[in-house]
Amino acid sequence: MLTSKRETSLRELRVRADELSPVLGDLDGNVIRIGAAIERAVVDGVQLLVLPELATSGYYLDSTEAALDVSLTSDSSVFSNWASLLPTGMVVVVGFAERLADVAYNSAVVLSSEGVHAVYRKVHLWDQEKNIFAAGADRQPVVKTPIGQIGVLICYDLEFPEVPRALALRGAEILVVPTNWPLVARPAGEHPPEIVQAMAAARASAITIVCCDRGGIESGKVWTEGTAVIGSDGWVIGGKKSHTVDATVVIDPASAQISAHNHVMSDRRPDHYGALSTEG
Amino acid sequence: MLTSKRETSLRELRVRADELSPVLGDLDGNVIRIGAAIERAVVDGVQLLVLPELATSGYYLDSTEAALDVSLTSDSSVFSNWASLLPTGMVVVVGFAERLADVAYNSAVVLSSEGVHAVYRKVHLWDQEKNIFAAGADRQPVVKTPIGQIGVLICYDLEFPEVPRALALRGAEILVVPTNWPLVARPAGEHPPEIVQAMAAARASAITIVCCDRGGIESGKVWTEGTAVIGSDGWVIGGKKSHTVDATVVIDPASAQISAHNHVMSDRRPDHYGALSTEG
Repeated sequence: MLTSKRETSLRELRVRADELSPVLGDLDGNVIRIGAAIERAVVDGVQLLVLPELATSGYYLDSTEAALDVSLTSDSSVFSNWASLLPTGMVVVVGFAERLADVAYNSAVVLSSEGVHAVYRKVHLWDQEKNIFAAGADRQPVVKTPIGQIGVLICYDLEFPEVPRALALRGAEILVVPTNWPLVARPAGEHPPEIVQAMAAARASAITIVCCDRGGIESGKVWTEGTAVIGSDGWVIGGKKSHTVDATVVIDPASAQISAHNHVMSDRRPDHYGALSTEG
Repeated sequence: MLTSKRETSLRELRVRADELSPVLGDLDGNVIRIGAAIERAVVDGVQLLVLPELATSGYYLDSTEAALDVSLTSDSSVFSNWASLLPTGMVVVVGFAERLADVAYNSAVVLSSEGVHAVYRKVHLWDQEKNIFAAGADRQPVVKTPIGQIGVLICYDLEFPEVPRALALRGAEILVVPTNWPLVARPAGEHPPEIVQAMAAARASAITIVCCDRGGIESGKVWTEGTAVIGSDGWVIGGKKSHTVDATVVIDPASAQISAHNHVMSDRRPDHYGALSTEG
């Protein structure tokens, strides 16, 4: 029985999520900030660097025009410049406002020293994003990179349990989530609710998830600063310093075998799950 | 667009999950213990009582024969006797070892004063259960009862994000999870991992989930005692006393509308989720 397209070998990976502090509308300044974050990560031997959603533009854009004003096309020299900073075997994922045929998308790019591997356009749009961006037409990608198969989703995509599960089924070894989480109330002692979702998704599919949130305040609104690296057992790992989480994650195919008789993927009963890919 | 079969009206429901302490192999004694738990709940005005998985038999049965020895058929007078204890508008869900044509199932029954509403046979079997029970052929049911539409799943079923999601899509208003969770290590300050899954599932579909675990020790093995009621916002509610959690839950269709522009069900993009109902 084909249970997953994952062909994972056991290995460790040094990952970093850096919240940065992008400035709303300051494309040129944000490009410099991101370049500096990449250079720091290179110096520190990071193999996978994840940066926030809309890191080039800031989040609280108030119109499609405002988004297009600070947008990049996927063939922008900004991306090739960043790629030129990278050593072989390092991958960067960063969110940006994309312009494609005068339509704005909330996108993320996957880069290595080889250049642009993939651009993903956010499918599930949050709140006012629906008035600014078009929803991506393509599902979340599993991207073959020098460090492995990376599943890419953005922010609210993570709230749909179908998304991380489908990425794991389609062969992702690690999920990356550029995000901008506005702070919401939660009971004392609890993780941010989005992290609870990520922890559950990680454990359900025995897959590592790297969430990179925002730091600071933008347009008077506070971010959750919920940046976290979550291991394939569903628990948060790594420490946070100065808005940056560093962690060494273990990519291990054996982690999906959770008892002598149980495997998180081959125990699925897909003939029972038809409701999920229909209108309900 | 049809986004969910839920036809929910706003209301409150008094729920209880009672861990009991079933004794392995003591069918007659367990039937008495369960009857007493039902009578207590009736006195206390509980509208939905959830009891553990395999509450009639105990969990660590060592063979199919041992399971059949303490099994019940779905037309057993045990169930009609329990149903006769119930006032109109009260529902009980309890796990039992079922015998059907000399095959053993890990099942749960849904009872009201009207009698047996449904029997569900666990689909996703955990560890040694695979050597003892047959897997159910039918998916988890959405059961129309006097207090609303109840989705039923058992223990390890909950670990598959497809299951609670599909139940919500198919019209469940509240999910009940009779379970037996063996204690596993977890980081300090964290909920049991199964509760993290339940919290994420509740929030993702804006649905209440009632998990009833076991108390005490059986065959030298410790239970998690993770019994919890989780509101449709994904947070644990209610207090635990003497292995019993009581909570008043709010069933509210509006809870699925999580921003002016976002609804947890109508925001789904089911055309993207095909991998979930195939072999991956």
